[in-house]
Amino acid sequence: MKIPDFEDIIQAQLLTGGYIHQTPVMTSSAINRITGAEIFFKCENLQKTGAFKFRGACNAVFSLTAEQASRGVGTHSSGNHAAALAFAASIKGIQAHIVMPSNAPEIKKKAVAGYGGIITYCEPTLQAREATLSRIADINGLTVIHPYNNGKVIAGQGTAAKEFMEEIPHIEVMMCPVGGGGLLSGTALSVKALSSSCRVIAAEPSGADDAFRSFKAGYIIPSAHPVTIADGLLTSLGEINFEIIRINVDTILTVSEASIIQAMRLVWERMKLIIEPSSAVPLAAILENRGLFENQRVGIILSGGNIDLKNLPF
Amino acid sequence: MKIPDFEDIIQAQLLTGGYIHQTPVMTSSAINRITGAEIFFKCENLQKTGAFKFRGACNAVFSLTAEQASRGVGTHSSGNHAAALAFAASIKGIQAHIVMPSNAPEIKKKAVAGYGGIITYCEPTLQAREATLSRIADINGLTVIHPYNNGKVIAGQGTAAKEFMEEIPHIEVMMCPVGGGGLLSGTALSVKALSSSCRVIAAEPSGADDAFRSFKAGYIIPSAHPVTIADGLLTSLGEINFEIIRINVDTILTVSEASIIQAMRLVWERMKLIIEPSSAVPLAAILENRGLFENQRVGIILSGGNIDLKNLPF
Repeated sequence: MKIPDFEDIIQAQLLTGGYIHQTPVMTSSAINRITGAEIFFKCENLQKTGAFKFRGACNAVFSLTAEQASRGVGTHSSGNHAAALAFAASIKGIQAHIVMPSNAPEIKKKAVAGYGGIITYCEPTLQAREATLSRIADINGLTVIHPYNNGKVIAGQGTAAKEFMEEIPHIEVMMCPVGGGGLLSGTALSVKALSSSCRVIAAEPSGADDAFRSFKAGYIIPSAHPVTIADGLLTSLGEINFEIIRINVDTILTVSEASIIQAMRLVWERMKLIIEPSSAVPLAAILENRGLFENQRVGIILSGGNIDLKNLPF
Repeated sequence: MKIPDFEDIIQAQLLTGGYIHQTPVMTSSAINRITGAEIFFKCENLQKTGAFKFRGACNAVFSLTAEQASRGVGTHSSGNHAAALAFAASIKGIQAHIVMPSNAPEIKKKAVAGYGGIITYCEPTLQAREATLSRIADINGLTVIHPYNNGKVIAGQGTAAKEFMEEIPHIEVMMCPVGGGGLLSGTALSVKALSSSCRVIAAEPSGADDAFRSFKAGYIIPSAHPVTIADGLLTSLGEINFEIIRINVDTILTVSEASIIQAMRLVWERMKLIIEPSSAVPLAAILENRGLFENQRVGIILSGGNIDLKNLPF
């Protein structure tokens, strides 16, 4: 288990820089007024495929040997990683096999197919997904790219915070959501390498608080029955992610579903940006803990913007 | 009736530049693929108060003499101009009186009040609005700032296209929606001053096509009973606006309601940007007239992003 470091993030940026968007950083005087903080938002919802996941997927795919590339990549996912991996692979003319549960939303199936992914459907259980992926990977000799428990993926995700710190160097607190920990571990590596004083604070729905509990316990406690509107954060921490997080993250805060929806609505209404619920979790943590962030310069990575417009929480 | 020219737009930019956002220009490879055009979107939905209207309001307010400023400004509006005028006035510590119909949406009342506007309610008829404004203006000695039929307002709106052309100089077709014609007349002045070849094409809902009909007839034909989801485009052309438009605009295209909703949805889903229906009208015109725009470099001014999230068309 190779733990990536900041040097890997520098390499990831060199390898993927020509293919990913250097996403804009936005501010909102209304949200600053409401929170009492000075918040900078890094808009990964405007990243290709609509989420930061494209960074890690590109780095993993572009790092393959020619021989690995010729055989293709695979993953099981019904979310942003699937679309990101399919698109990253298509850029290099590499086959991407995506195992999806048969009941995945039509819109997600279309997205993956639209990026050229080869979909294999399976029963909607984790066991079936893993077994199906394993079978397909063996048959085709695929390199399996885990959505977060993968050093190349982590290094790719870390390029977002690297860009962010280089553009806004005086950030005092860096925040992102935590699900499997891919974004958080990459972010923490970049922040701690680039600043001696900037704190890293993760935010997590209290209905899916395995990272919060694992961080306190010092060992991974997987989610049992996570329930949250933030559908990108249902997964449990990966091992590589946790190794990085327990050393480089300062705090993990949990938030209520009501705060997530309130924060999401603020970004939609005040910033005119479409973000998915997972992206709203850090701002929700600021709303719930005003005193912690007042008069601080805070960076938030808006992780993604893929949401079904027919199923909004307001 | 003083017709503004490009020199007025240069002056407007000097006067307001420190207060308005130089909004970003964004692109979408997905939308380019769908339309066959290369489209650049100028994001005035990210402008302060959520619409381009802030540009014109600032220029009008900042151009007042000290004596006029001491007495305040007034307008009747339930839309983006009201919020923009209230906020522009508040920046300079000037009173802004806004006449609104008593049945205006709660969200619009709150926005105007939030920017410090002094609201006077009246019956929901144009006659009552004009009479009430006239009475309040007489009592207080207000300078009335018309939302579009005003040279300073037009010059302010023209700064958006000026910024746009300077950032993306090779645009071949510039597009914006047309309602009263404030944005279109300002845009046309900037484009024709800065390019000898760029065409200006306006887009209008076919359910509110007074500009289309006026442009063809050569004289103003007001809207009788306009009906469209694009609530910012229900107004009829102003006289000053029409004088500029009939000389400087190349074409006006009308579009169906279905195309407006389709275009709006594309921008929401593919660009993760919240735009109001009026902003989607130019892209709707491209969807309906693919051949006209194929392989062209097209600029679209996304006019605003103020929309009630509880009342979406999808």
